[in-house]
Amino acid sequence: MFKSEIYRARRKRLKNLVGSGLCLFPGNDDSPMNYPANCYPFRQDSTFLYFFGLDSPGLNAIIDIDENKEIIFGDDVTLEDIIWVGPRKKLKERASEAGVKTVLGSNELVPYMERALKQNRKIHFLPPYRGETKIKLARWLNLEVDQVKDQVSVDLIKAVVTLRAVKGEEEITEIERALRVTREMYLAGIPAARPGVKEQEVLAMMEMVLRANGLSFSFPPIITINGQIFHKTTYGDTLKKGRMLVMDSGAESERHYAADITRSIPVGGKFNSRQKDIYSIVLHGQEEAIKAIKPGVYFKEIHLLAARVMAEGLKDLGLMKGDLDEAVAQGAHALFFPHGLGHMLGLDVHDMEGLGENYVGYDETVQRSEQFGLGYLRLARKLQPGFVLTVEPGIYFIPALYEKWRKEKKFKDFINYEKVEKFLDFGGVRVEDDVLVTGDGCKILGPRIPKKIAEIENLFR
Amino acid sequence: MFKSEIYRARRKRLKNLVGSGLCLFPGNDDSPMNYPANCYPFRQDSTFLYFFGLDSPGLNAIIDIDENKEIIFGDDVTLEDIIWVGPRKKLKERASEAGVKTVLGSNELVPYMERALKQNRKIHFLPPYRGETKIKLARWLNLEVDQVKDQVSVDLIKAVVTLRAVKGEEEITEIERALRVTREMYLAGIPAARPGVKEQEVLAMMEMVLRANGLSFSFPPIITINGQIFHKTTYGDTLKKGRMLVMDSGAESERHYAADITRSIPVGGKFNSRQKDIYSIVLHGQEEAIKAIKPGVYFKEIHLLAARVMAEGLKDLGLMKGDLDEAVAQGAHALFFPHGLGHMLGLDVHDMEGLGENYVGYDETVQRSEQFGLGYLRLARKLQPGFVLTVEPGIYFIPALYEKWRKEKKFKDFINYEKVEKFLDFGGVRVEDDVLVTGDGCKILGPRIPKKIAEIENLFR
Repeated sequence: MFKSEIYRARRKRLKNLVGSGLCLFPGNDDSPMNYPANCYPFRQDSTFLYFFGLDSPGLNAIIDIDENKEIIFGDDVTLEDIIWVGPRKKLKERASEAGVKTVLGSNELVPYMERALKQNRKIHFLPPYRGETKIKLARWLNLEVDQVKDQVSVDLIKAVVTLRAVKGEEEITEIERALRVTREMYLAGIPAARPGVKEQEVLAMMEMVLRANGLSFSFPPIITINGQIFHKTTYGDTLKKGRMLVMDSGAESERHYAADITRSIPVGGKFNSRQKDIYSIVLHGQEEAIKAIKPGVYFKEIHLLAARVMAEGLKDLGLMKGDLDEAVAQGAHALFFPHGLGHMLGLDVHDMEGLGENYVGYDETVQRSEQFGLGYLRLARKLQPGFVLTVEPGIYFIPALYEKWRKEKKFKDFINYEKVEKFLDFGGVRVEDDVLVTGDGCKILGPRIPKKIAEIENLFR
Repeated sequence: MFKSEIYRARRKRLKNLVGSGLCLFPGNDDSPMNYPANCYPFRQDSTFLYFFGLDSPGLNAIIDIDENKEIIFGDDVTLEDIIWVGPRKKLKERASEAGVKTVLGSNELVPYMERALKQNRKIHFLPPYRGETKIKLARWLNLEVDQVKDQVSVDLIKAVVTLRAVKGEEEITEIERALRVTREMYLAGIPAARPGVKEQEVLAMMEMVLRANGLSFSFPPIITINGQIFHKTTYGDTLKKGRMLVMDSGAESERHYAADITRSIPVGGKFNSRQKDIYSIVLHGQEEAIKAIKPGVYFKEIHLLAARVMAEGLKDLGLMKGDLDEAVAQGAHALFFPHGLGHMLGLDVHDMEGLGENYVGYDETVQRSEQFGLGYLRLARKLQPGFVLTVEPGIYFIPALYEKWRKEKKFKDFINYEKVEKFLDFGGVRVEDDVLVTGDGCKILGPRIPKKIAEIENLFR
């Protein structure tokens, strides 16, 4: 928990932004894995954490703007619970730590909502992403489960995005805490990446550091010699010389703020000449992108800048050709760099993604592109001081995409397919840091995690 | 996957047991953690695994007994999917590995069910435990979500319990694989349990071994110096001399069979005299219980035997007194041993618990007790060869329970409250192994994991 004033101030600003009605915040419950009592590790809903901080299942909350009430609904533990889960602070006391004075039993939520519905008051709630939450909302709002999504409040979404997008100092501190442990993870994992070792053994070294610090991953880590597969979350491949190991992972801090870091390292620790070439292009793309980040700039422009810088490098290598302005405008670089440059970071690793990417990363001044590659960009809008975002360009050689485009002779004026073919066994490279937009530029958050070629090679000495 | 004949044989036996109708098996989908795309590690439904073996989200299956059809519903990946998650085997091919010839697209499930409902056929399905599954079933069966639970098929539950309760050789092999890694986990974790170390650091050592073997936990591990709290799954306490560290955890094998082992060790590795006393009583209770396990015996009797053996030890120590037959019959021992002796083990750590504990552990010959302690016993019924179960007695000193009973003067003829009071800072001890009921007795599964006092003390040398 942060200090109670922080939660109070957040709720006050929310009330001002939304103006009227009743805001309903379902907390998360335990999420069953293979039967009701065998649950995944509990993760509270991020928006619930943002406004109330209370980090346990079975809680729901209302901010009743019309009646100026803030209420936590939940139940204290029984003696039987105490035997099984241990003694707990009274909910009343916990709520007061979040600056909330009113606590009601769980069974009082339905009557409260019934009254509000009878009064025809506007009920605001956010898009649910868990089945149990959909079912709860349907019950409280007297709707069919399938109707719930149509009643989501865009006003509330926009207000929450406005608040959560700009990070307070206490939030930056948390992200930097997550980054400190993340750095330790990489310092343990990178030197383990030797030929013959399995991906899962590298992961084990990183996870040991994470657990010893009492933390969890902010998302399922990617530790793969097949970096050309973006969301590969199996770890069974054996490391081979000549492959790059893409390591994309992050700790989640005690208060549930995410870190998100990618390093790509040559198995065995020594870059060969081809690896040096591709890695240098990606790193240069990332560094140039970071240099260009400042308030008032569209992140879409930063994305295109990184694409352009990397396209130049690929042209020097002979993999691209022709007019690069045109190539990038048409999206030819997306053969190598088919994902977005980055996303917001906060209580969620893709911050607020569940509220709708277009509300978070786009606005009336910039719409999502339909171009392959650019269309995946999660964040495009104008940057503001206090935004925290990832900067994570990459270059990949994806056999299935290559085959498709080559057959279609797609962008044949910009892509040298014969040359690219020789790289199809390369895999991929991605480099990612977490960046805070400051008053006049930006700042890479957390302690430095080795990313220059010499720094990485040194870790293996 | 096992060989396809295994799945075919299981389904054939199921059809014979259920007799008629249509059995619907919803597979699990990805389970969102904090937004739709950030999911917990995928875990397939255990019964789906049992009959179909296919271990990925987005699949559902029907065994249509009336029409003698077995169908997997699901979709192949698109090119876009291939970029994000990599190439995948065709579903048709995967289904054939489970001996299933018919694969239909996901969108064909609703029409299939509509036909069956129109024909007024009996639809069998098991109790859903995830919100998303409840929503899926409601949609397929044209029910309200809240109505789904009332339509669950007791015939199907009983048939599945009959099959899953008796483990095949291939299943025993899997459990023993999980136990081999679990042993390695304990060998790494136990010697780390020194004063000043945090619980999370011990957990980190164990988890490193688990991950390096490419496996996951079968349930949230308990690693605590507060063993008197049964389901404590936080790890922030610092180990202190004089406390017992209760370590209850298990690996889940590649094919998702669980191990479940508890060891309790003195912080620092040397038992003091009080720890030796309590530990010896628990270990003796466990060993006597295991000796008594054989086909035809009610597990409830084994539970009471363990209680009786431990009560004798507690009487020798002066913590209990009076007529022990009477004390155990009335449940006085439950002050120290308030949980059940064990449960079935298989694809779930509490095997099939989601189908209803009373169907799994009880039958018409033995009903669940309402006595405190004994009422928690998950498994009471007559043992059969092929059952795999845990044997996990424990002795705990639970301050809240002690206070309550002492005030009520509960069982004052059997409990020496003044003596017990001196143990309130003790914590708890539990010792657990996984046991296979054989033709004429039983066998502890897996390699030996140190549990004698001398063996444990030796691990610290």
